[in-house]
Amino acid sequence: MGGIIIKNLLIAQSGGPTCAINATLAGCYKRACELGFDNIYGALYGIQGLLDSKIIDLKSQIKTEEDLNKLKTTPASALGSCRYKVDSEEKLEKIVQILKSFNINYFIYIGGNDSMDTVYQLSKYIEKIGEDINVIGSPKTIDNDLFGTDHTPGFGSAAKFVANSVYQIAKDVEIYDYKTITIVEIMGRYAGWLTASGAVAKKLCGVGADLVYISEDSFDFDDLKAEIDETFKRTDNILILVSEGIKDSENNFISNTSGKKDKFGHVQLQGPSHIIKDKLKEIYDIPIRSIELNILQRCDMAFASKTDIEESFEIGKFSVDSALNNSGKMIGIKRISNEPYQTKFVLVDIEKVANKTKMIIPRYTDSHFQIDDEFMQYILPLIEGEVDIEYKNGMAQYFSFDKEAIIK
Amino acid sequence: MGGIIIKNLLIAQSGGPTCAINATLAGCYKRACELGFDNIYGALYGIQGLLDSKIIDLKSQIKTEEDLNKLKTTPASALGSCRYKVDSEEKLEKIVQILKSFNINYFIYIGGNDSMDTVYQLSKYIEKIGEDINVIGSPKTIDNDLFGTDHTPGFGSAAKFVANSVYQIAKDVEIYDYKTITIVEIMGRYAGWLTASGAVAKKLCGVGADLVYISEDSFDFDDLKAEIDETFKRTDNILILVSEGIKDSENNFISNTSGKKDKFGHVQLQGPSHIIKDKLKEIYDIPIRSIELNILQRCDMAFASKTDIEESFEIGKFSVDSALNNSGKMIGIKRISNEPYQTKFVLVDIEKVANKTKMIIPRYTDSHFQIDDEFMQYILPLIEGEVDIEYKNGMAQYFSFDKEAIIK
Repeated sequence: MGGIIIKNLLIAQSGGPTCAINATLAGCYKRACELGFDNIYGALYGIQGLLDSKIIDLKSQIKTEEDLNKLKTTPASALGSCRYKVDSEEKLEKIVQILKSFNINYFIYIGGNDSMDTVYQLSKYIEKIGEDINVIGSPKTIDNDLFGTDHTPGFGSAAKFVANSVYQIAKDVEIYDYKTITIVEIMGRYAGWLTASGAVAKKLCGVGADLVYISEDSFDFDDLKAEIDETFKRTDNILILVSEGIKDSENNFISNTSGKKDKFGHVQLQGPSHIIKDKLKEIYDIPIRSIELNILQRCDMAFASKTDIEESFEIGKFSVDSALNNSGKMIGIKRISNEPYQTKFVLVDIEKVANKTKMIIPRYTDSHFQIDDEFMQYILPLIEGEVDIEYKNGMAQYFSFDKEAIIK
Repeated sequence: MGGIIIKNLLIAQSGGPTCAINATLAGCYKRACELGFDNIYGALYGIQGLLDSKIIDLKSQIKTEEDLNKLKTTPASALGSCRYKVDSEEKLEKIVQILKSFNINYFIYIGGNDSMDTVYQLSKYIEKIGEDINVIGSPKTIDNDLFGTDHTPGFGSAAKFVANSVYQIAKDVEIYDYKTITIVEIMGRYAGWLTASGAVAKKLCGVGADLVYISEDSFDFDDLKAEIDETFKRTDNILILVSEGIKDSENNFISNTSGKKDKFGHVQLQGPSHIIKDKLKEIYDIPIRSIELNILQRCDMAFASKTDIEESFEIGKFSVDSALNNSGKMIGIKRISNEPYQTKFVLVDIEKVANKTKMIIPRYTDSHFQIDDEFMQYILPLIEGEVDIEYKNGMAQYFSFDKEAIIK
C-alpha cells in the first residue's frame, strides 16, 4: 500500500449494542487522526446503511477531545447498527463501488460473529477483484462467544453489570422473613458466559445466586425442583439465574414451549424465567418472581468495567494500525497473565472466526451451584475498575451523531 | 423525659426496600452515638420481627466509621423488612412489653404509609397507657406518595435510576434503521412520580420517551394507537413509558385483565407493558419489546442520587433529635427553594400521614407527551449528585448485619 497518498478510513458498527463498541470507534478515530488520515468516515446502520451510501464525516462531528471522551463512554452503537447478511456477489460489488466512490482504502467493521462473516466475504471478494481496500474486523459482543480471542470487548462491562445487579437483587429479596423464589434471566442465547458471571456475587460477596443454569447445560425441571427443595433447607430466599437460551434434554429452547403465534405468524417467545415461574407457582404457594435483566445488560454504563472500556479503545487504535498492512483479519485478545492482568492484541484469520460460537467450557461450572476458581481468575480482571461518566443535572452525558448529516 | 438516665434506642425498617433506607438507619445510629445513647438496637424484619423479639445490638455490629459509611451506601433494608398491619390492642400491648423488657425509651420506625399507621397506633396506645416511650416515623418510599413531605427519601435515587435507564434504553433502541416499539414499565401502583421522572431524559438529553402514561391518568388503548401512528410520522423508534398501575376508564388495572388464577387461587398478574405489547403485536408487524425496570429501581446504587442519600442520612439524625422530646410524629421535608436547593425538616402529625397516598398533581404532565417546567424544577435537585460506592474486584461493597446475633 506504500504508493497511496490519500488515506481514507471508514468505520461501521454492527450487531447488538454494547457499552464498549463506541470506545472502539473512539479508538479507531483517535489513531486515524494521529496517523494523519485525510478523511474518517462512519457508515450509519452498519453494512446495510453502507449499501444505501449512508455515510457521515466523523471529523466534522467529533470536534473536541471532550467529544471523543464522551463518545468513548457512550453506550449502544452511536453510528447505528444492523443485522444483515451479505449473501450475494452483487451486494459485495455494490459495497466496493461505494467504498471506491469515497476513495476509502481502509474499512474497519466492529461487530460479532455475523459481522466477521461480512469481513470475510468482503475481504475475499476485494482480493479476488484486485482492489486496494483493506478490511479489518474489530470484535465486540456482550455474549463473549467469538472464536480467536480470549474475550470480547463489551463482555466485561455486561458481566460487571450482571454480577452487581445479581448482588443487589439478592440484597433486595432477602429482606422478608418468609420463603421466596426469584428467577433472574440473563442474556446469552447460545453461550452462558454472562449468566456464569452473575455467580461472581455469591463467590465474592457471600450473597447472590443459589442455583445457576447456563445455556450449555441441559435444563431439567424436575432437577430444578429437587435443587430448590434442597436449597430451602439452608435458606429462605432462593435466587436462581438462568440463561435466556437454556434448553431441555431434547435441545429445545425452554422459551419456545408455548408455541403461541401472533397474527403475523411469528412465534411469541416468552423468556424461560417466566415459564419457569409459572410452573413453580403450581407447586409452591409462596411469592415467586421472574426478572429479566433485559437490555440494560448491554447499555448500562454505570457499572461498566474500566478494563473493558480502555481495552476496547486500545483495540480500536490497534485496528487502524493493523489495517495499514493487513486485510481479512480480526483483532484478537491474547491473555498473557491473570495477575497482573496482561494481554496482547493479535491478528486472527477471519475465516477461523466467522459464523462460529464459542461456548462456555463446562468445567467452569460446578453442578448448578457455583463457578470454580479458574473461572474467577478468568473473569475478575475483566470486570475490574470503574468508568468515570460525566454527569449534568443527575443525567449521564452521552454522545450523539447527527444522523441527518449524510454526505451527498 | 428529663428524669431518665438510660437512653436506649430501637430502630426498625419496614415496607419495600430503597437505596436510601440504610442511609437513614446510618444517620440514626450516628446521632445516637453522638448523643451518648447507652444501647442502640435494631429490630429485624420490622414490627413483625419485633413481635418475635428479633432484636440485635447495633453497636457490636457497626464497629468502625468505615462500617457506617458502607451501611449508608448499601441498598435494600439491611435490618430486613415486613409488610405487617398492627391490627389489635393485644399486639400493641406485646410490642410495649418487649420494648420495656429492653428498656427502650425511643423507637424510630423507618417506612412508608403502612408503617406510619403503625407509628400512629403505637404512639396513641403508649400515650393512653401512660408509658414513657417516644415513637417517631421516618419516611421512605421510592413511590414518593407520602403526605406531609415535599418528597420521600429513596425517591430521588429511584427517579435518577429510572431517568438514566430510560435514556440508555432510548440510545439502545434507536440503533436500527427500521420501526420498533419499546414499552418500559415503571414502578408506582398508585402514584406516577417515578414514571414521570423517566420523562426527564427526553427533556434534558433530547433522547428518551415519546409517550408517557402514569397511574393517575386513565389509559385508553385506542388513544395509544392513535398516538403511536402520529409519533411514527416523526420517528422510527417509539419509546413508551407506563406506570405499573395504569388503569382503564372504568378504573380497572390494565394488569388485571387476564384474570387467570393459579392453583392456589391467586390472580396471576401480568405487567401492563406485556399486555400492551401483546395487543400491539396484533396491529403492527414490527419488533415490539416490553421491559420491566423491575426491582433494580429500588436497589441499584450505581445511579443513586447524592442529594437523596445525604438527605436520608440527615433525616436519620434529625429523627433521633426529634425522638428526645416528641412522639407520634413523622419527619417531613419542607422545600424552601429550588435554586439553590434548600429544605428544612419538620415534624408532621402522624395521623395526617397514615394510610394516605399522595398522587401526582396532574398538571405535571402535558397530555401523554412530556413533563412541564414546574415538574423539572421539582425533580432536578432530587436526582442531583453522584454517590461514591466502594468497589473491590469490580464488585460494589455493601454492608450486611449478622442476623443470627439475636439478643437472647
